[in-house]
Amino acid sequence: MTPLNTPEVLISEVGPRDGLQSVKATMSTPDKCRWIDALALAGLREIEVASFVPARLLPQMADAAWVVQHALRHTGWRVMALVPNLQGAQAALAAGAQKLSLPVSASPAHSLANVRKTPEAMVQEVKAVLQWRDAHAPGVPVEVGVSTAFGCSLQGVVPEDDVLRLAVQLAQAGASEVGLSDTTGMGNPAQVKRLFRRLQQEIGPLSGAAHMHNTRGLGLANCLAAYEVGVRSFDSSLGGLGGCPFAPGASGNVVTEDLVFMFEAMGVSTGIDLAHLMAARTPLQEGLPGEPLYGMTPQAGLPKGWPV
Amino acid sequence: MTPLNTPEVLISEVGPRDGLQSVKATMSTPDKCRWIDALALAGLREIEVASFVPARLLPQMADAAWVVQHALRHTGWRVMALVPNLQGAQAALAAGAQKLSLPVSASPAHSLANVRKTPEAMVQEVKAVLQWRDAHAPGVPVEVGVSTAFGCSLQGVVPEDDVLRLAVQLAQAGASEVGLSDTTGMGNPAQVKRLFRRLQQEIGPLSGAAHMHNTRGLGLANCLAAYEVGVRSFDSSLGGLGGCPFAPGASGNVVTEDLVFMFEAMGVSTGIDLAHLMAARTPLQEGLPGEPLYGMTPQAGLPKGWPV
Repeated sequence: MTPLNTPEVLISEVGPRDGLQSVKATMSTPDKCRWIDALALAGLREIEVASFVPARLLPQMADAAWVVQHALRHTGWRVMALVPNLQGAQAALAAGAQKLSLPVSASPAHSLANVRKTPEAMVQEVKAVLQWRDAHAPGVPVEVGVSTAFGCSLQGVVPEDDVLRLAVQLAQAGASEVGLSDTTGMGNPAQVKRLFRRLQQEIGPLSGAAHMHNTRGLGLANCLAAYEVGVRSFDSSLGGLGGCPFAPGASGNVVTEDLVFMFEAMGVSTGIDLAHLMAARTPLQEGLPGEPLYGMTPQAGLPKGWPV
Repeated sequence: MTPLNTPEVLISEVGPRDGLQSVKATMSTPDKCRWIDALALAGLREIEVASFVPARLLPQMADAAWVVQHALRHTGWRVMALVPNLQGAQAALAAGAQKLSLPVSASPAHSLANVRKTPEAMVQEVKAVLQWRDAHAPGVPVEVGVSTAFGCSLQGVVPEDDVLRLAVQLAQAGASEVGLSDTTGMGNPAQVKRLFRRLQQEIGPLSGAAHMHNTRGLGLANCLAAYEVGVRSFDSSLGGLGGCPFAPGASGNVVTEDLVFMFEAMGVSTGIDLAHLMAARTPLQEGLPGEPLYGMTPQAGLPKGWPV
């Protein structure tokens, strides 16, 4: 469980939240726990295990508090929960979540469609969450991901100045870190470098994770681009589960297995054991029979002579 | 057909050769011609249309001379043929090929398995091809791709010094350009940068194309890495056809559609019209019914607001 070397990048597994939230089927609580146990064994250091939203909206997440509590049995990783608002944050903190993640969309059209609030109203919501956190769970980091940062399927182009202005507002509000999400898979490596460089210039060490999608096949290239400008934290999903795929075969989220393979092959340590990571596909598949899993490295297997 | 701006990168389409050579079915000559016509319409500037090998070994390529002659009807692109030896080169030049491509493997194990010759013997073969070219078709470029340059599924690790020594021998022999091929999809972006930088140091302007595979999902990331160290010529295949896929769903060759999308999205011009390129999937699919085609961009479609 404890890597020998300090990992150079943080791979934040979002499958149990982002993935399970996106599929029609509901994975049972015991199946979720088995999957999470397998992920812990692989040496992950951060995992987003649930979304705290009303069960009538997302029945897949009705057991969020149970799942958080199960994940907390494992040490060596940080158990994160996504919360869309103060009410969710209250529930997540009560359940013992060690980190909160809030999505705030840079596209007003997407924000209204997704949470029925403008980006400005969401900044106020983040402030309310931070106040509650300060009063009831000081020290728990609150990460904000700026969604549709690289484009929006409703609005089209999202001006980079809008993204940066929002990121600065969130940093000033007190967010622990502010990352950028390519929610609709419209980003490209040049844009990824440009936006993360600007983000670093604007908010320095609060500059957070890259949440890339593989919608048009550029997921890993975009992660590489982010890495090259200094990003060291990446969201991805086992089997590429979730992330609003557009079409069959078009995975949404970056596949954790391929992302870890890329970094490890480059000599960039992730702290993750690839064989155990790939083994965690089994409980995922068993818990979601018939659901397509993606990933090229699991299909091809590790190269002869691995690890190099 | 004529791009308004001079393209910044050369996308060399290898589907009609590498792709069709790898599938079991044989595409009929009229179907090949229809596909090639559709590719010409997309604005490609280089296309590998056939392999000149004995028909008993590769019945898919029995019509190589016909296909070269058909492709020559289109202007604005260079019609290339792969040749494994002098005999193939003689036939390809007789058919009117405007460029020859020879694969020379850096892994002795792969070289013996593939062409029953050592890498050293293949250097001699290249010399024989170059002599014939000088005598019978002066001015026709002869490109050599160093295969298994990033690893070999038979030998495992391929020492970088072996790759570079071979590349230098080939350049000294008179090859017009020497590229590097990730034949088995074992390369990673750090290695791609390192090897192409060394190649450029050793053979300067003769440093050639990056032929990357997507076996483990790193195809585009590796192309990006190569681009970032100055490579401007890339091999890819429409629909990801060919390239020895390891498993169903695991495409071998980099998908031309996704590669072109990546560069164009980055503002790096390819001279290729993406809509016409994607339309060229139709004659490919019609000519190879039931054969799986890959590509995330064709599945997801172009983003809202495209072209940016």
